[in-house]
Amino acid sequence: MANLEVCFLTATELARRIRAKDISATEVVEAHLAQIERVNPKVNAIVTLHAEQALDAAKAADESLVRGNEVGPLHGLPIAHKDLVPTKGMRTTMGSLVYKDSVPDHNGLIVERLKEAGAITVGKTNVPEFGAGAQTYNEVFGETFNPYDTSKTCGGSSGGAAVSLSCGMQPIADGSDSGGSLRLPASFCNVVGLRPSPGRVPIWPCLLGWYPISVQGPMARTVEDTALLLSAIAGPDSRSPIAITEPGSLFLRPLHRDFEGVRIAWSRDLGELPVDPRVTAVIDGERHIFESIGCRLEDVEPDFKDADEIFQVWRAWRFEVMLGKLLETNRDQIKDSVVWNTELGMKLTGPQIGEAERKRTELYHRLREFMRTYEFLILPVSQVPPFDIKQRYITEINGVKMDTYIDWMKSCYYISVVGLPAISVPCGFTSEGLPVGIQIIGRHQDDFGVLQLAHAFEKATGYWKRRPPVSA
Amino acid sequence: MANLEVCFLTATELARRIRAKDISATEVVEAHLAQIERVNPKVNAIVTLHAEQALDAAKAADESLVRGNEVGPLHGLPIAHKDLVPTKGMRTTMGSLVYKDSVPDHNGLIVERLKEAGAITVGKTNVPEFGAGAQTYNEVFGETFNPYDTSKTCGGSSGGAAVSLSCGMQPIADGSDSGGSLRLPASFCNVVGLRPSPGRVPIWPCLLGWYPISVQGPMARTVEDTALLLSAIAGPDSRSPIAITEPGSLFLRPLHRDFEGVRIAWSRDLGELPVDPRVTAVIDGERHIFESIGCRLEDVEPDFKDADEIFQVWRAWRFEVMLGKLLETNRDQIKDSVVWNTELGMKLTGPQIGEAERKRTELYHRLREFMRTYEFLILPVSQVPPFDIKQRYITEINGVKMDTYIDWMKSCYYISVVGLPAISVPCGFTSEGLPVGIQIIGRHQDDFGVLQLAHAFEKATGYWKRRPPVSA
Repeated sequence: MANLEVCFLTATELARRIRAKDISATEVVEAHLAQIERVNPKVNAIVTLHAEQALDAAKAADESLVRGNEVGPLHGLPIAHKDLVPTKGMRTTMGSLVYKDSVPDHNGLIVERLKEAGAITVGKTNVPEFGAGAQTYNEVFGETFNPYDTSKTCGGSSGGAAVSLSCGMQPIADGSDSGGSLRLPASFCNVVGLRPSPGRVPIWPCLLGWYPISVQGPMARTVEDTALLLSAIAGPDSRSPIAITEPGSLFLRPLHRDFEGVRIAWSRDLGELPVDPRVTAVIDGERHIFESIGCRLEDVEPDFKDADEIFQVWRAWRFEVMLGKLLETNRDQIKDSVVWNTELGMKLTGPQIGEAERKRTELYHRLREFMRTYEFLILPVSQVPPFDIKQRYITEINGVKMDTYIDWMKSCYYISVVGLPAISVPCGFTSEGLPVGIQIIGRHQDDFGVLQLAHAFEKATGYWKRRPPVSA
Repeated sequence: MANLEVCFLTATELARRIRAKDISATEVVEAHLAQIERVNPKVNAIVTLHAEQALDAAKAADESLVRGNEVGPLHGLPIAHKDLVPTKGMRTTMGSLVYKDSVPDHNGLIVERLKEAGAITVGKTNVPEFGAGAQTYNEVFGETFNPYDTSKTCGGSSGGAAVSLSCGMQPIADGSDSGGSLRLPASFCNVVGLRPSPGRVPIWPCLLGWYPISVQGPMARTVEDTALLLSAIAGPDSRSPIAITEPGSLFLRPLHRDFEGVRIAWSRDLGELPVDPRVTAVIDGERHIFESIGCRLEDVEPDFKDADEIFQVWRAWRFEVMLGKLLETNRDQIKDSVVWNTELGMKLTGPQIGEAERKRTELYHRLREFMRTYEFLILPVSQVPPFDIKQRYITEINGVKMDTYIDWMKSCYYISVVGLPAISVPCGFTSEGLPVGIQIIGRHQDDFGVLQLAHAFEKATGYWKRRPPVSA
């Protein structure tokens, strides 16, 4: 089979063929390494590569199959981990000059689980400095380019992950999401990113074990692959006190479901957010797809009052915990937006945090009530399409000025604060050929329902197949 | 059957007999109302009584049985709810003059579930003002007396609940626990109180939906009854974002377990806490019981460094959210300790909260590591035995001065901050005849294991039967 064909098979199919010994893990890893060698220089998505170790692991994976051992669901699939997650013996920079030479002595829990499931670590994917902001650039590795137009950003913070998927450099990817970091780069790169419920994918190590706004989750080129990956990384582990007790195997159930008569809230802008008309046009154009599968769409907006304050307060609070001390010693090595956000955290008062948390509980209940009527909420992932690679963040949309470096991500981070599961699934392209994702939000902890609806939508559209990136 | 006999049957047996129509719900409720009439004036545990409504509900419960309806596990059992939890159409004061005439228009989720399970609401049980402090007294209803010695306090904050159980005024009781409020009164009144894992019993309404330090939970006279009650109030509900997904039916499994060879950390004082020698003597005296059932006890202390700071910070933060505004308008109606605690919260900074939360995560992991070796940790519930009813809180133990009104509860609240399940089970009596409880802590979310060990201990001791309270 040609390399390119291997690299654009679905993860589900690839894993099946490896298990069936139609193709060896070694061949699969070799094909992906060749693709990385060919394409990565154009997009700069994979920033650390351990090709030899990957080939050794592939060889071991093949031997294990030959011996007739039982193998995991991701057996033989290559993966590069997000450079925010620690990898044992493999450079983990978090995109920061401060950690540019840091080599952890342990794997993050998500990496452990991926290895247990049989995935083969190939390297690391690029991130913004400390994962802050949805534009993947940093002083250690530079920018990661959008494979659909390399003059544009790929989004972030799981930018390298999204681009690697999009370009066939890996069939599955791990990512993380506070304000949209699994969803926004998926939207910008025509792939799928699921922000699971907090605790669905337990996080360790983790400085703030109970913090539910930051999650880790799966990315892939198809919804089915995303579910497959989720099944391997979900499930309880006492290293995360907020881990959901349900097993990951829940996500191996068939995704097919009849959506006849299912009520869906269709939101073009959450009632108040400026959305670039190029995005709106693409989203509007696919509305009929949901109707064609039987959904009952209603134009109705939930009340996200206070969501901005809640997110900004908790985000600043977390930055201070993570980086407050570092600011004292390494301020000149930290980008302005991170300094600003950390200093915001330093100025917070206890009652401000209390007020934000009280409002978050109120918001949670407003959305819960809203979603008793509507099983899903659908809205754009990003308020803008992929933008100029040299622009660090969006400062204005439709003439509306943005106050902070993350203001343009409200369509994502409003969802983060209520803790509902949310997926970004490819929706189409702007007239300039830039990808646009659609965001599907489900009820409390209904990650599976979100995957099911996304799967039904994907099946009815098939965007991925229609237009692979120019750079791949 | 004589009233007194009915009132001191276990809840499990009472429910069985009601279902078998050996006794009617009406007879059961009547017996308990008679016991309340006879005993409550001496102890002041039940502060609101709706006898007629209870009798009406009992009649309906009997009719439902006659019609052959399927009934819940608590069918026909009378219960008085803690006066912190809202009860529809029934005065709910929180022990505060501010709310002395407040009548909610809704039931708390725990009350809903108790009703669904067939329990019959009889009234409300006394609490300290706003549940603050482990001494049950307030300006609305006065003090609740220890039934083993009415010159002593019953503890708190679920004080009225513990006393009602102890005196046969109800067979089951709901309670809540931030710093020990399910465990300490159980210890002082010779009954069982389980502080479940956060989210095990979902809380609604709840001002701070994600706050894991305050929990609700079951109390009863036996461990089996506690498990029965837990089965009815545990299980997921989307009204609590942190609800554990496991169903309550988990707790209907048989409690019997073989403890041969199970390693247990035996802590006399968490390595640093002053413990009244009268308490230590009782606990020491029962060590052999755990050995007799096969446990391997080791004298070893986990490292609870920072637990005090963590608890004090989060507690003060929560008080500010709950009562900050009320302090502005009703300061003169609020007790000094609550004013102090709320003002402490007003002065907190964001970074202080961040530091506390970072330390809480570290502490969680220290305990998690510790409990990989030891399946359980056993220690005293209370550092002191029941004390003078006129004393508002303990100011000194073994010559060690206490800095705040809750300092003497560290043996309870150190456990609260790590979120491990903890039970208080009757252990024995001081030479003055005052009850002493022993505290069993389990691994993360192993509420069932805690119940099992407590059950084995209880079976081997049978303290409850040995000495009912003088006031009952």
